[in-house]
Amino acid sequence: MSGLGFQVSMVDGNARRGQLTTAHGTAETPAFMAVGTAATVKGLTVEQVAASGTEIVLGNTYHLMLRPSAERIARLGGLHRFMNWHGPILTDSGGYQVMSLSALRKIDEKGVTFSSHIDGTKHALTPERAVEIQHLLDSNITMVLDECTPFPVEEDEAERSMERSMRWAARCKEAFTARDGYGLFGIVQGSVYPALREASAKALTAIGFDGYAIGGLAVGEGQELMLSTLEATVPFLPLDRPRYLMGVGKPSDLVAAVLRGVDMFDCVLPTRSGRTGQAFTHRGTLNIRNSRHQDDPRPLDQDCACPTCGNYSRAYLHHLFRNGEMLGPILLTGHNLHYYQSLMAGLRKAIEDREILAFADTFTRTQAEGDIAPL
Amino acid sequence: MSGLGFQVSMVDGNARRGQLTTAHGTAETPAFMAVGTAATVKGLTVEQVAASGTEIVLGNTYHLMLRPSAERIARLGGLHRFMNWHGPILTDSGGYQVMSLSALRKIDEKGVTFSSHIDGTKHALTPERAVEIQHLLDSNITMVLDECTPFPVEEDEAERSMERSMRWAARCKEAFTARDGYGLFGIVQGSVYPALREASAKALTAIGFDGYAIGGLAVGEGQELMLSTLEATVPFLPLDRPRYLMGVGKPSDLVAAVLRGVDMFDCVLPTRSGRTGQAFTHRGTLNIRNSRHQDDPRPLDQDCACPTCGNYSRAYLHHLFRNGEMLGPILLTGHNLHYYQSLMAGLRKAIEDREILAFADTFTRTQAEGDIAPL
Repeated sequence: MSGLGFQVSMVDGNARRGQLTTAHGTAETPAFMAVGTAATVKGLTVEQVAASGTEIVLGNTYHLMLRPSAERIARLGGLHRFMNWHGPILTDSGGYQVMSLSALRKIDEKGVTFSSHIDGTKHALTPERAVEIQHLLDSNITMVLDECTPFPVEEDEAERSMERSMRWAARCKEAFTARDGYGLFGIVQGSVYPALREASAKALTAIGFDGYAIGGLAVGEGQELMLSTLEATVPFLPLDRPRYLMGVGKPSDLVAAVLRGVDMFDCVLPTRSGRTGQAFTHRGTLNIRNSRHQDDPRPLDQDCACPTCGNYSRAYLHHLFRNGEMLGPILLTGHNLHYYQSLMAGLRKAIEDREILAFADTFTRTQAEGDIAPL
Repeated sequence: MSGLGFQVSMVDGNARRGQLTTAHGTAETPAFMAVGTAATVKGLTVEQVAASGTEIVLGNTYHLMLRPSAERIARLGGLHRFMNWHGPILTDSGGYQVMSLSALRKIDEKGVTFSSHIDGTKHALTPERAVEIQHLLDSNITMVLDECTPFPVEEDEAERSMERSMRWAARCKEAFTARDGYGLFGIVQGSVYPALREASAKALTAIGFDGYAIGGLAVGEGQELMLSTLEATVPFLPLDRPRYLMGVGKPSDLVAAVLRGVDMFDCVLPTRSGRTGQAFTHRGTLNIRNSRHQDDPRPLDQDCACPTCGNYSRAYLHHLFRNGEMLGPILLTGHNLHYYQSLMAGLRKAIEDREILAFADTFTRTQAEGDIAPL
């Protein structure tokens, strides 16, 4: 029996409406996880994160192992208590950040060694250590250590890398301490090669995990190739376990991936964009730094129920960004995360109503309208 | 009849317990006003500002006239609506910031011209324009334009400057549109010279204002000289009107000034310190960046009821600052403002109980204990 509960209550085409249950509560799926890299969703209090509709938060093993260290967080009572987020937490394995952030990295069958991007100190990450770190963090959902291939990559190199990731996945399963309300997810690799994706999905299913992630996408291949790879992967994953598309994505990516049977997502886009001035709305994106907003008394999104849209004008948000005031990123991040979560809530409702295709059509048409005209 | 209600309900020695009533609600006095320079209390949402116990917020004419401009805020419905703070707002006149921030300033009997510290554009500020700007902002409490002399300054120069400020005060009174729930405060000048302070207080009282500020202090003269100047000023101010000590100060300054009859304060210290890592506690100050806090599971202040102290360890706050996470300044600013407001609440209660001297003694003794020992 799995450590994590997962119930699919309704399907509409390939889209699934479900519930994921952990020792720290339940997340309705399809779910968007807010990224809380260094034990904080950048710019927001946990109360604001919860108010956005977020039910599950992601922490980064790579960042947390370097600072403040997994052992320190364990001594302080685990990540939930440390960051005061008492809902479900998923942690990545650190593999992706080792590749994208660290210097002097060396990878072999045993694992990866690298130098910290913060202070140059040397660190090692093996499948066993990645699982141990996530255990120390008290993460509800542990991700296996994998190697994320860049894009593009030759098929034979992608195959060798995927096969190593599968061996690492088996070692992670071995190292993982099964316990109620906690689980371990495998990660499908294989770049954009359907045969490799199928082989990877089957290899993971044979090992047996609490959930299955699709990794190695959203690394520059573009939406079309991402979706076709998804279509070549999902059919080989178990029906009764959650599917998590890692690091994705734009609102249109979420809609398209839900249509293809994905249950979970994470992405820095709503929070990072919130800090740089880009807002997501029902009518596409806008940049609040643009001077067209400086006298505009209207909210970012007239169809949004978030506190930012309820209380603040575009003119005020523009003013805050123009002056470098912290409140600008705070209010915009809150809005963006709320927008993402309301999109997920809309997708969940559409699946319940078996209207997912109509929902997706309306979404696409409304997004294409573009921002409201200036006053 | 004054546009602002002010009731003194209890006195204990020179300390006064009162209520200041404006068109946007009431503030209990002695009151600490949170500084909201550019239409935002840096780092906090208005909900967090209110949750700290703050009842009145200060805006800066100098900053707001430059960006986004008073006319723009007026078109957008005034400062309360612009920044979503629906409680009382006091605005300074801009005089102090012209002196401390702008370049190429020129002052004469008419007013002051200066170049913006942001983009070098030329601006003029006269007593009449300062009042007009604050009217456009819809500020509940307008401050007269004055000249704030530096410290030290020769007595004859301080006298000439003070007398000009008094003529400007009369012009401000003339320019001010009296209306219910709104008021105009005069500002006593005269540096640290008792005779000048007395003359200034009497000149302002003769003109007649809704409240009386004491300006030109906390500019480097030190606490002792500040307090003796206060003692040489307050006796010449009307009993039935609020007294506001501008730009002050440290917690010990607030206690000492309340003992000497001051009703209102503002200072950037709790918010600015919150951004740099300095925390105010019942046992003095501490710097959360110090590595002694990195494993400390205890709150900043064990006697504090704020959300930061209720939910977060010193170790977590240290981690946030160490990583440059926005949430560090957010949580520390929230705590500091809460500390200031709980100090004011303690002072108000002590006056009601006629125990202000005992309160001040306990405050001084506890502060002197210094931070708790490391674990």
